[in-house]
Amino acid sequence: MLLIGVNRSPYTRRVAITLKAYGVPFEQQSLSAFTNRAEVRANNPLGRIPALVLDSGETLVDSGAIVDHLDEAYGGDRPLTPTKGADRRAVLKVAALMMGACDKALQAAYTRNHTPAEKVHQPWIDDCNAQVVNALAAVDTMVDPAQPYLLLGRLTQADVTAFVAERLARGIGLDTEAQAPRLRALTKKLLGEPPFGATEPPAT
Amino acid sequence: MLLIGVNRSPYTRRVAITLKAYGVPFEQQSLSAFTNRAEVRANNPLGRIPALVLDSGETLVDSGAIVDHLDEAYGGDRPLTPTKGADRRAVLKVAALMMGACDKALQAAYTRNHTPAEKVHQPWIDDCNAQVVNALAAVDTMVDPAQPYLLLGRLTQADVTAFVAERLARGIGLDTEAQAPRLRALTKKLLGEPPFGATEPPAT
Repeated sequence: MLLIGVNRSPYTRRVAITLKAYGVPFEQQSLSAFTNRAEVRANNPLGRIPALVLDSGETLVDSGAIVDHLDEAYGGDRPLTPTKGADRRAVLKVAALMMGACDKALQAAYTRNHTPAEKVHQPWIDDCNAQVVNALAAVDTMVDPAQPYLLLGRLTQADVTAFVAERLARGIGLDTEAQAPRLRALTKKLLGEPPFGATEPPAT
Repeated sequence: MLLIGVNRSPYTRRVAITLKAYGVPFEQQSLSAFTNRAEVRANNPLGRIPALVLDSGETLVDSGAIVDHLDEAYGGDRPLTPTKGADRRAVLKVAALMMGACDKALQAAYTRNHTPAEKVHQPWIDDCNAQVVNALAAVDTMVDPAQPYLLLGRLTQADVTAFVAERLARGIGLDTEAQAPRLRALTKKLLGEPPFGATEPPAT
């Protein structure tokens, strides 16, 4: 199994954490959607990371579709996203908010990094960042500091997506200690667990 | 059941089509994420549409999470997204490509519509649009003109997402007749089916 993408991408890292949590061996080809454009597009016509190439040669794209497959293949009766009902809805809701926060954080980052300085429209960046902070703050209210995980008393995809979203928000300069303190405390704890610690991207 | 969002949004319309396809009665509150910001944020901290308020009062957000619930609640043994295996992966792959195309098309549109003219960075818009065209072209190759639907010989979420993505691409000025002719022919046919025709947004 081959994971294509860099762990600096929250979407790629979400898949890498999920694979580690399931104990699935995999290789990783650390390609970036910007600097390795042609290679990334060969695996995904959209030009996004991650992609996951299965041993059969089938290529899956999009972190949501990939973790859906991993849940089916390796999740047994306790997949990281529960199979149905209120538990599934609760985990998918956190995942949706946190992946949406990543979308917005990256829109802000792309605008800043891939637009000439004189064309950067700061109100758009501020607007995106405000949406990120709102989403993190909403998930922050769900964190019970007495519990080891966000939901259901066990590791779920809610923790995985909240972890990568908080990490990205901090990476683009948002003050998550102030804006989402309980979530920040949770991600510090999670970093001590192998699936999270082992996927930390190299410092730049 | 209350659907919040305007059908001009491909994500909202995807949910509206899914509800109609399942024959689920619902009301719709046509709010826009830009002009009705406070009301939208009251239902989704991210400030995105759609949201779906269930009769229990529980609010679901994100079109992917919403259609996942609708499949479980109303899909019986033939949900629009198959429950597992290769069929599920195939449908989720088209959905991921088409929702990603919508993300990119809207990034291009937002840049054009919410940035002062002198700050519009055309290469970024061109780049987003190229990704949209690539994704549509990839799905175009999957269309068999002799078949009524994209996959599995029946209506699936692949058709729904391809329909809304092609519609959006055309709406932002991409030439889908030239770039994805088989997909364009499919969406013309689908428009004749009630779930698609009945959700057409008013002309502006």
